[in-house]
Amino acid sequence: MLLQAASPMAIPIVVLDPEVTAPAKQVSQPSVMPLADPPLQHVDGAFTSLGMISQLAQQVDILTIEIEHVDVDALEHVANEFKTTGGRSGQGVKVYPAPSIIRTIQDKYAQKVHLQGQGIPVAPFLPITSSPATSLGSNPRDALRESVLSAAHQFGYPLMLKSRHLAYDGKGNFVLKSADGIDEALQALIPEASLATGKPIADRLYAEKWAPFVKEVAVMVVRGVDGQTRSYPAVETIHRDSVCHIVYAPLRPVDTPTSGIGKEQRGMGKLGEKSVDRRAQEAAEKAIDALGEGAVGVFGVEMFLLPDGSLLLNEIAPRPHNSGHYTIEACNYSQYTAHLYAILSLPLPPIKFIPSSAAMLNLLGWSASGSDDFLKPDGVVRKAIGMGAAVHLYGKAGCRKGRKMGHVTIMGESDEEVKAKIDELVDVLPGDYKNRTIAPVTQDSKLPLVSVIMGSDSDLPVMLPATKVLKDFGVPYEVSIVSAHRTPARMVEFARTAEGRGVRVIIAGAGGAAHLPGMVGSETTLPVLGVPVKASVLDGVDSLYSIVQMPRGIPVAAMAINNSMNAGLLAVRILSLQIPRLREQLENYVEGLEDEVLAKVEALAELGAEKYVQERLVKK
Amino acid sequence: MLLQAASPMAIPIVVLDPEVTAPAKQVSQPSVMPLADPPLQHVDGAFTSLGMISQLAQQVDILTIEIEHVDVDALEHVANEFKTTGGRSGQGVKVYPAPSIIRTIQDKYAQKVHLQGQGIPVAPFLPITSSPATSLGSNPRDALRESVLSAAHQFGYPLMLKSRHLAYDGKGNFVLKSADGIDEALQALIPEASLATGKPIADRLYAEKWAPFVKEVAVMVVRGVDGQTRSYPAVETIHRDSVCHIVYAPLRPVDTPTSGIGKEQRGMGKLGEKSVDRRAQEAAEKAIDALGEGAVGVFGVEMFLLPDGSLLLNEIAPRPHNSGHYTIEACNYSQYTAHLYAILSLPLPPIKFIPSSAAMLNLLGWSASGSDDFLKPDGVVRKAIGMGAAVHLYGKAGCRKGRKMGHVTIMGESDEEVKAKIDELVDVLPGDYKNRTIAPVTQDSKLPLVSVIMGSDSDLPVMLPATKVLKDFGVPYEVSIVSAHRTPARMVEFARTAEGRGVRVIIAGAGGAAHLPGMVGSETTLPVLGVPVKASVLDGVDSLYSIVQMPRGIPVAAMAINNSMNAGLLAVRILSLQIPRLREQLENYVEGLEDEVLAKVEALAELGAEKYVQERLVKK
Repeated sequence: MLLQAASPMAIPIVVLDPEVTAPAKQVSQPSVMPLADPPLQHVDGAFTSLGMISQLAQQVDILTIEIEHVDVDALEHVANEFKTTGGRSGQGVKVYPAPSIIRTIQDKYAQKVHLQGQGIPVAPFLPITSSPATSLGSNPRDALRESVLSAAHQFGYPLMLKSRHLAYDGKGNFVLKSADGIDEALQALIPEASLATGKPIADRLYAEKWAPFVKEVAVMVVRGVDGQTRSYPAVETIHRDSVCHIVYAPLRPVDTPTSGIGKEQRGMGKLGEKSVDRRAQEAAEKAIDALGEGAVGVFGVEMFLLPDGSLLLNEIAPRPHNSGHYTIEACNYSQYTAHLYAILSLPLPPIKFIPSSAAMLNLLGWSASGSDDFLKPDGVVRKAIGMGAAVHLYGKAGCRKGRKMGHVTIMGESDEEVKAKIDELVDVLPGDYKNRTIAPVTQDSKLPLVSVIMGSDSDLPVMLPATKVLKDFGVPYEVSIVSAHRTPARMVEFARTAEGRGVRVIIAGAGGAAHLPGMVGSETTLPVLGVPVKASVLDGVDSLYSIVQMPRGIPVAAMAINNSMNAGLLAVRILSLQIPRLREQLENYVEGLEDEVLAKVEALAELGAEKYVQERLVKK
Repeated sequence: MLLQAASPMAIPIVVLDPEVTAPAKQVSQPSVMPLADPPLQHVDGAFTSLGMISQLAQQVDILTIEIEHVDVDALEHVANEFKTTGGRSGQGVKVYPAPSIIRTIQDKYAQKVHLQGQGIPVAPFLPITSSPATSLGSNPRDALRESVLSAAHQFGYPLMLKSRHLAYDGKGNFVLKSADGIDEALQALIPEASLATGKPIADRLYAEKWAPFVKEVAVMVVRGVDGQTRSYPAVETIHRDSVCHIVYAPLRPVDTPTSGIGKEQRGMGKLGEKSVDRRAQEAAEKAIDALGEGAVGVFGVEMFLLPDGSLLLNEIAPRPHNSGHYTIEACNYSQYTAHLYAILSLPLPPIKFIPSSAAMLNLLGWSASGSDDFLKPDGVVRKAIGMGAAVHLYGKAGCRKGRKMGHVTIMGESDEEVKAKIDELVDVLPGDYKNRTIAPVTQDSKLPLVSVIMGSDSDLPVMLPATKVLKDFGVPYEVSIVSAHRTPARMVEFARTAEGRGVRVIIAGAGGAAHLPGMVGSETTLPVLGVPVKASVLDGVDSLYSIVQMPRGIPVAAMAINNSMNAGLLAVRILSLQIPRLREQLENYVEGLEDEVLAKVEALAELGAEKYVQERLVKK
C-alpha cells in the first residue's frame, strides 16, 4: 500500500523482502522507470541481513521500514556507513525512523520504560527476570516463577505476561488467571532451550497489570523531519483471536447519554473536559514526540480506554498500521501518503476525515483457498463493491487461517449505516468469521444523526411528527427527555457530548418558559431547532417567545407552535447538504405536497364548494 | 492510472505499449504476481500491430483500450479469432468496448451521423468531399474548396473544419474565419501527398457550424455489461491552446441570479426545468446508450453549453478521459475503478461526488526539463501538497511543450476556495502557463455558500450583522434584494437555482407581511433561515408571526426579531457539519462570548453597581 501511494507521484521505490512475489514488488517495476538512472532493482532477501540491507541502501536516498522486526544492528551499521557518502546520490542515505527508535520500540519493556519516563500514562508493569535478589538458587524456571508471583502479588490477577521481543497479533502474550497457570505461561513464552542453558533470563518477559478496558483505541500519528506532528482521528479497534478484525472511525464515547447520565458520569468525559477522541489524539502525539528527533514517518499508537474515560498507552508501531488502513479512502490523504510526505520532507497539510462514519473490515484467510473464499460470486468482494465499499486484496502468494489477505473500507452517512453494512459483510465471510456472536461489534447500538429531546413527557405527542419524518426519510434518530429546569446537569452533558456521539442536529421541544432549546444551544455548536409546545395558557405564544427571542451569539431556529413536523423536515434539509439521497427524497416530498393540494383542487371543481365542505371538511 | 486503480484489488493487467518505459508498465510487474499462472509479461509494441494485439490477447480474458487510435481491423480480427477459444483461460477474450463502437468513434463524422440519427443534439455538420455533383473538373483541391464554400454558405463564418480521423487536443481542427482562409485550412488538414494522387478525397474532412458556447462541459459515463449506466457529475472544462487546462466540478450555471434575472432569463435553465448539470448527465447517458450493447466501460462525453442553456454534444471518447481525472479523489470511486468494474462485470454502485467543490489542473510540459519544472522547491508540486491537494506525476520519459506530465486535484469547502487555490497554483506553473490572462478562469466570480437576501433595501441595516458574521468566519456569501411581492418571478428563479450555484443556506430577512423566507423555502430544498425585520408598526410581531407560522411541509427557521447576527451564526453552525475548521472557530467564538461576559463581571465587582451604570451604560 505504500507503493500504491507512491505510484501516483512516480516516486521510485525499491523493496527488500524475502519473497520474490511480495505484494509490494507486484505493484512497482522500478527497472523501467525512466527517471531512475541507474536502473533500480527490488532486492530478494531477509530484513535481518546486513548484506541485503546494504544492497538496498546503495540504491536509495531514503530508507524506511514497514515492519519493525528488522535487524537494528544491521540498520544502524548501514545508517553509519552511508551517513554522508554512498547511496543513490552518493550523498548518503537517511534512515527514517531512526534505528535507535526502532530498537526502543522492538523491546516492549524498554518502550514502556521510555514512555513512562516521559510522563505518558501506561499500565503498571514490572520486568520478569531469573536473577532477582530473591532468586532461589540457580534454577532459572524457579526464579522466573518467583518473579511472576511477585508481580502478581503487586498487580493481582488476571495478570498479563508479555514477551519483550517479536510479539505481534497476540503472539507472545499470555493472560495469567491464577498462580496455577505460571508453568504453562513460561512454557508458552520461553523456549525450552533458553531455560536449559541455565544462564540468567533477564530480557525475555515482563508483566503488566491487567487494564480493564472498555474499548481498544488507536491513533495514527505522522511526524515530519521538522518535528511537525499531525494525527488522524482516533478509532475503535475490535480484535478477534487477538487479530485486528474491524476498525470503526471516528471513535465514539462508550455510553449514550440518553440512557443514564444525570445520575452519574458514565465514562463519557467529565464536564468541560475534551472529548475522548481529542484526548486520544493528544496522548498519541505526545507519545510520538517523546520518541525524539528521529521519529519521522507514521506511527500507530494503540491505547486502552478505561471505564472512567481515561486512556492508557498500550504500544507503538513505528510504521503504517492496520488500524490506519481506513485513511486510504476516508481521509484527505492516507497514512501511506503521509509517511511519504514525512520521509521526503514534503509539507504535511491538515488532516481531514471526510465521511460521517467509516469502518474497515479485515479479510482474514480461513483456509489455503485464500482469496477464492472472498472472490466467489456470493462472496464478500462482490457484495462490498455492490454496497459502494472499497476492496483491497493484497495478492499474497499463500493463505492460511488468520492471515491478512485484504480489507474492505466502508464509508457512510451515519454510524448506523456503516454498522449495518459491516454486519452484512461479516455474514458472508468464510468459515466462522461470519459468526457475529464470536466477533461482537461493541459499537454503540444507538447511533443517531438527529436527537429529538423535550422538556417533559407531556410534550411527546407534539414531538412525534418530527420522529415520523425522520423515520420516513431513513434518518437515524434518538428520542429522550431532557429538562432544562429539572435535570440541568443531564442537559449540559447531553449537549456537550452530542457532537462526539455523531449527532448532527438537535430538535428540542418545550412549552411555557421554554428554555431547553436555547440552553442546549449554548452548550453545543450543533444547529438546534426549537419547537414551541403550546401549554395550557397563552396559546403557545409564551413558548414561541421563549424560544425565538435568543440573545445575539447563540442561535436557535424557532419553528411554528406545535409544528415539530417542520423541525424534522428542516433537520432533513440540513442533513441533505451532505447526504445526496436526502435531497432527492426532499424533491419527491415537495412534489407530493403539490400533488396533494392539486387533488383537492380537482375535488373542489368536481364537487362544488358546498358539497366539498359537507363531504370533506364537516366529516372530519 | 487504470493500473493504479487495479492494483488495490490485485487485478493482474498486462499492457501493450510501444514504450518499454510506459508509465503503465512502471506501476505493475505482472511477472511476479503469484496469482498469474502462467506468468504475464507486458508487451512492447504498436497499438496498430495485429501481431502485438494477438500477443496481448493470448495472455488475457478481457481486452480493453485506453486510446482510441488503435487498428480497429486488427482489434476486430482478434475479437473474432478469440471469440470462444484462446486467451488466458482458453475460453476466449472479451473486447470492451466493442471494436465496432471504436470504429464509429474514430471517424468523427460517422460519430456525428450516428448520434444525430439517435436523436442526440449536435451542431449542424456536413461532409467535405472532393467528389460532389458540382465538382469543377478533376482538381481535388478545387473540389474541396467548393465543398467548403458550400458548407460556409449554409453555416456562415466562423466555420469549423475538422479532420475525421486521429484528431485530438485541437490537432486536426481549423477555425475558418472567412473564405480567404480555405487554402490555409486545407493545407493544414490534408497532406499534400493525398491531394497529389488526384484521387477523390471523401473521408478526410467535415464542416461543422460554429457553436457559440458559453462553457465547455464534460460528463464521464460508465456502462456495464448488463447495460446499466451511471454518470459522474458534469464538469466545466477550460482549454488553453486547445489542450485541457483546468476542470471545475461540479458544473455551475452561467450567470448568478443576483445580477440580472427577473428582467430576463439569462440561460440559467428555465423555470421548472432540470438543472444544467442534470441535463448534461442525461444527454451523456443517452449518447452512450445510443452506441449499443457493446458500449461497456467508461466514456467521456464532451458538450457545449449554449447561451440559452441548451447543450450540444461535441464528441465522445471511448475510454477514461482527462476531464474525469478529478474523480480519483473527488468521487466514491474513480473513472478508472468504474472502468474496471464495468469490464469485469462487477456491480456499479451509485456514484457520489464527495467535496463541495473540486478542480483539476493539468501539469503541461513547458520544455524538455519536464517534471523538474514542477518539482523545484518553489514549484507547483510542493505548493499543491502544502495546500492539501493530490499530486499526480505520470513518470513519462520525455517532455515537451504542451505534453501532459501530470495533474493536481484540489478539493475544497466552496468554489471560492478551490478557485483561489487554482489561481495560486497557476501562478507557479512554468513558462507562460503562469500567465493567468492567457488562461482565463471563466468560472463565475461570485461563488457563495450562503445567500443573504431581503425584501427591501430598507432591511439592509438589519441584515448587515449576518454578513459580518459570515465574513468573520471566512464563509463566501452574496447579498441581494429579492421581493416576494414585487419581484415574484425573480424570487422563484433565485430559489430554484440557488442550490445549483453552490449555495447551501439561504438567510432571508423581511418585515410586515414577511412572506419572503416562506416563499423561498417552498421553491428550494435548502435550509432557509428567516429574520423578522421590525417594521414601523406592531414592533416586529407581524414579521415574526409571518415567518414562523409556516404550514406543515415547508420548514423555515425563524430567528429573533432583527437578530440577523444569529442567522449568520446558525448558517455557520450548519456549514460546520461539513467544514471542520468552522467547528473549531465556533468553539473559539463561544469561548469569546464567555470571556466577554466574565470581563463585565469583573468590571462590575470592581466599580460597583452604581458606578458601573454611570460609566458603562449611561455613556452609551
